[in-house]
Amino acid sequence: MSAAKKILLVGAGGTLGQAVATHLRTLGHTLIEASRSHPDTPLDLADEVGIERVLAALGPLDAIVATTGSVHFGPLQQMRSAQFEVGLQDKLLGQVRLALIGQHHLAPGGSITLTTGILSEQPIAQGASAMAVNAALEGFVRAAALELPPGRRINAVSPSVLQEALDSYGPFFPGFEAVSAARVALAFQRSIEGIDNGTVFKVW
Amino acid sequence: MSAAKKILLVGAGGTLGQAVATHLRTLGHTLIEASRSHPDTPLDLADEVGIERVLAALGPLDAIVATTGSVHFGPLQQMRSAQFEVGLQDKLLGQVRLALIGQHHLAPGGSITLTTGILSEQPIAQGASAMAVNAALEGFVRAAALELPPGRRINAVSPSVLQEALDSYGPFFPGFEAVSAARVALAFQRSIEGIDNGTVFKVW
Repeated sequence: MSAAKKILLVGAGGTLGQAVATHLRTLGHTLIEASRSHPDTPLDLADEVGIERVLAALGPLDAIVATTGSVHFGPLQQMRSAQFEVGLQDKLLGQVRLALIGQHHLAPGGSITLTTGILSEQPIAQGASAMAVNAALEGFVRAAALELPPGRRINAVSPSVLQEALDSYGPFFPGFEAVSAARVALAFQRSIEGIDNGTVFKVW
Repeated sequence: MSAAKKILLVGAGGTLGQAVATHLRTLGHTLIEASRSHPDTPLDLADEVGIERVLAALGPLDAIVATTGSVHFGPLQQMRSAQFEVGLQDKLLGQVRLALIGQHHLAPGGSITLTTGILSEQPIAQGASAMAVNAALEGFVRAAALELPPGRRINAVSPSVLQEALDSYGPFFPGFEAVSAARVALAFQRSIEGIDNGTVFKVW
């Protein structure tokens, strides 16, 4: 049984974020939920100064979790570099920014957990940008794990398409096995309560 | 024996670019060399309009090759998001921008070849940004290969550290087997003259 941990969850308003929050709270952890529009803890991962301020105010954290990030989906033959850049700025650089700052605000044994996705390895039509972004995040996590301050860890969770998102994303993932957000939440628990470092937890 | 091809080489001034140019010319291909400061064909991969203009002026190409791109190397614990973004803008988005535009300027059977590097898979100290960028490029190539206009191809070449660059980069790659730029140039030939699509040619 793991001791109660103090956890910052960025992206708490999303489908996955809500499931992760519910699961972590059931386990007895203390959650600080944050998102762009959160009433108590507004946090925009594009805002370096804002992240610094929030993390400094919170004090040492046992875990920092991100379940956030947008990526452009669209046919390659019509894709423009500005569309490709959406995911670089939002899902990739947003989470990396949180990790780069967050590494200095982790308590001993503390961890960072980012969210990637099955598209890091398995291409779909209209997913060239998503594949690049997810692969980049996993590369970052693998390398960063070896350079974090001693006793700190970083991992990623890579879900397949969520059952809860099938209405909007289902047509992009023909024949893919969807997973429930609750099942994906288990992987966040493994990252937070376990000893892994540099691991990509695939939920598919 | 492959027929002579009309090839645009971006990054022709670099160590790798020079070796690729020499090799492709020896094979009898017609080379248009380009780089930021090239006297005949100046081309900045940050400049979408400039790329469009150069490619439109050149007419259909049998191959588009990029051997260019900067990435920030530095300790993770001091890394800032602005430093991480250098490689996203330059090596990653620069090459992706060339590919997104270039796909519409390829002759039938034409190919695009981008440059990644061993750090996509094998981490080094101070290389968290490089690992993310190279992994992203390989993810993009794998996905884009499946969506290019019919009969067009895209591949990547992933070299280990170059023998010619050991003076400056050697200390970052302890125990890595260096490869000559001339040997890496063979992989570009394979991409251009072969039938591969979505392949990462590892030269290590």
